[in-house]
Amino acid sequence: MTCRDLKINIERLMGRLRELGAIGALPGGGCCRLALSDGDRRGRDLVSGWMRDLGLEVSVDRIGNVVGLRPGRENGAPVMIGSHIDTVATGGIYDGCLGVLAGLEVIETLNDAGIVTAHPLAVAFFTNEEGARFAPDMMGSAVHQGALGLDTALAVTGIDGTTVGDDLRRIGYDGSTETGDFRARAFVEMHVEQGPVLDVEGTRIGVVEGVQGISWSEFTLNGVANHAGTTPMNMRCDAGVVAARIAIKARDIATAMGGDQVATVGVIDLAPNLVNVVPQRAQMTVDLRNTDEALLKLAEARLFDFARDAAASEGVELKRRTLARFEPVVFASGMVDLIETTARGQGVSTRRMPSGAGHDAQMFAPNCPTAMIFVPSRDGISHNIKEFTEPGHIRAGADVLLHVVLEKASN
Amino acid sequence: MTCRDLKINIERLMGRLRELGAIGALPGGGCCRLALSDGDRRGRDLVSGWMRDLGLEVSVDRIGNVVGLRPGRENGAPVMIGSHIDTVATGGIYDGCLGVLAGLEVIETLNDAGIVTAHPLAVAFFTNEEGARFAPDMMGSAVHQGALGLDTALAVTGIDGTTVGDDLRRIGYDGSTETGDFRARAFVEMHVEQGPVLDVEGTRIGVVEGVQGISWSEFTLNGVANHAGTTPMNMRCDAGVVAARIAIKARDIATAMGGDQVATVGVIDLAPNLVNVVPQRAQMTVDLRNTDEALLKLAEARLFDFARDAAASEGVELKRRTLARFEPVVFASGMVDLIETTARGQGVSTRRMPSGAGHDAQMFAPNCPTAMIFVPSRDGISHNIKEFTEPGHIRAGADVLLHVVLEKASN
Repeated sequence: MTCRDLKINIERLMGRLRELGAIGALPGGGCCRLALSDGDRRGRDLVSGWMRDLGLEVSVDRIGNVVGLRPGRENGAPVMIGSHIDTVATGGIYDGCLGVLAGLEVIETLNDAGIVTAHPLAVAFFTNEEGARFAPDMMGSAVHQGALGLDTALAVTGIDGTTVGDDLRRIGYDGSTETGDFRARAFVEMHVEQGPVLDVEGTRIGVVEGVQGISWSEFTLNGVANHAGTTPMNMRCDAGVVAARIAIKARDIATAMGGDQVATVGVIDLAPNLVNVVPQRAQMTVDLRNTDEALLKLAEARLFDFARDAAASEGVELKRRTLARFEPVVFASGMVDLIETTARGQGVSTRRMPSGAGHDAQMFAPNCPTAMIFVPSRDGISHNIKEFTEPGHIRAGADVLLHVVLEKASN
Repeated sequence: MTCRDLKINIERLMGRLRELGAIGALPGGGCCRLALSDGDRRGRDLVSGWMRDLGLEVSVDRIGNVVGLRPGRENGAPVMIGSHIDTVATGGIYDGCLGVLAGLEVIETLNDAGIVTAHPLAVAFFTNEEGARFAPDMMGSAVHQGALGLDTALAVTGIDGTTVGDDLRRIGYDGSTETGDFRARAFVEMHVEQGPVLDVEGTRIGVVEGVQGISWSEFTLNGVANHAGTTPMNMRCDAGVVAARIAIKARDIATAMGGDQVATVGVIDLAPNLVNVVPQRAQMTVDLRNTDEALLKLAEARLFDFARDAAASEGVELKRRTLARFEPVVFASGMVDLIETTARGQGVSTRRMPSGAGHDAQMFAPNCPTAMIFVPSRDGISHNIKEFTEPGHIRAGADVLLHVVLEKASN
């Protein structure tokens, strides 16, 4: 057998996915392993044990990231495969775990074939990617790559009042490896798409070119409450009407700009929210995303200008607050090309696409060649116990991962 | 002094308004006398006592309406002045009470002048006009005029679990006069406008031509929850966008139709109502009102057609439920003309207008000549402790009431 024909073992990979998914399993499917919970500890113990079984040198760093290293023929920076094994409260068994366990499957496939790569390999899982219990999300990878200070992260208080530092000690994952200056030779993350594009198109592999920039705004609109029957239309200062106009404008901006631009009004709260009272107050959010920072700024400017005018013409006071703002991340073109050509070489359909969600990979992108491999999510469903990806897709994705890693780890 | 020069005593009327307003007084102004509460009982006792002091024959009917009768030179149906003395939880001292106490002021003015009218006069206050504790509103006048069955009304359970019948007994206002077939010779209700039109225009008297028809609809929109970042715009079934489109359409319909047409979206509830999730579900209300039933039906048809199309084009399921539907009430033109000519004869500015809110008078309109006199509400504010009407306006309105009643009660 030559390296070119090497293939992963899908039954073995699915077995590990199911075994990890059984920890914190929920009725009806899916699982709950919030970061640094007892469930997370049991998941960490299981995956660390598998790492050791595969002969990896396991280290835990001070924010609890776990890295399993497989030496190469030469010393130096490893080619790293990584993702996370924490989940949201009602998560699926694929989100994050797939990227970590596909990494272990790559290792076991190489072990079975007796292949030692030129450069070292590493498989990692990062602490608290989801941010469901402790903010911000992607915490472990951010600390690992020096984008977030260790002490800041350790001091974060979660939704149940405990701190990251305390809970790391409690579950025994307060490791000793220093953080912030680890540099990989390359980083690859395989992940479920968490959106419908691949599933709807029937495409197997998403070649991820980058992560969308995110702009979250909160608009607070203050109008005048009035009787719905006795107040003529031309005497109204209706905060709800302005909120509705902003929501429609957000949709129109995204549709008109096309490309990767998306816009979502997820929250609208009216007060007093009574059938026969003109809304005095509306609070709403607008989520804008684009892979291109200039276009994202253009969408913001168009929306903010419109909102100001719409509020003024209704006699409604407008306040805007930025809830979150991240610039887009662009993955290295060489890595993106490699994933695409590797997949096509295996006869698998591909599509270049942005990631609409944040991932650990984006923390590596500024520091080393980085890219991601997406596999389809059935009906685009994720963060949900109904999350599902067909084993055939997982096999295709893991085979691409295997050969991308082999290529990057060779001389 | 001839009848033509007769005027009410504004200090006496204001004194009674303040004394009644002191019962259930709230910090900062206004009062709380929810129907059939202890506060309502004390208000009823006070006003009934005033009726007896003025020589009226007081009767209480089986739904607790209290009527004070002043005999005329002839027997027969009385000319009736009526309104209510219950309030919302944070009400003003004018809403309802003004119509009842202006009626008592008319009686005392006639007593002082030694005038006996040809036809009897009556002053009434009706049970539970507000509907704030027991639904429906205008309960007492509806039962009084046979529009609502007595037993149905007595069995109504309120927001705190007690029934109308039980609380009528508890406060001692379960009277013995039968309901449903009382026919007045004419009915006049003086009331604060509860809207801004008279105040903004600087007009003293609103000549009410009728009560707007009311159409309340609830729309429930079921779309698909999706990730705000990973779901392309053309794959969304966004219930919130459809809700926003319906809200804007309601505004546009009212603006385009003009006249008395008003439209209000008072309630919008999204689910899951999260910044980064495309809304799966939206529930909203639309309040449409017009004085013309055909136009109201046209507004409904335009809105419902639009909503159906907007939902279908977004791939969102739409359900509509009627929460309330009342046809417009048209007051007798002779009564409306009489109020207008009487006010103008007194040199007071007038404006014909619809009532946007429901009132006890509308229950009498099908059965006898009925009309209403509006006086300005400062800033259009009502159902609020800041409700205020200037004594000068009240004097003007009560003088019109006096002479309209004198005219209708003469031969």
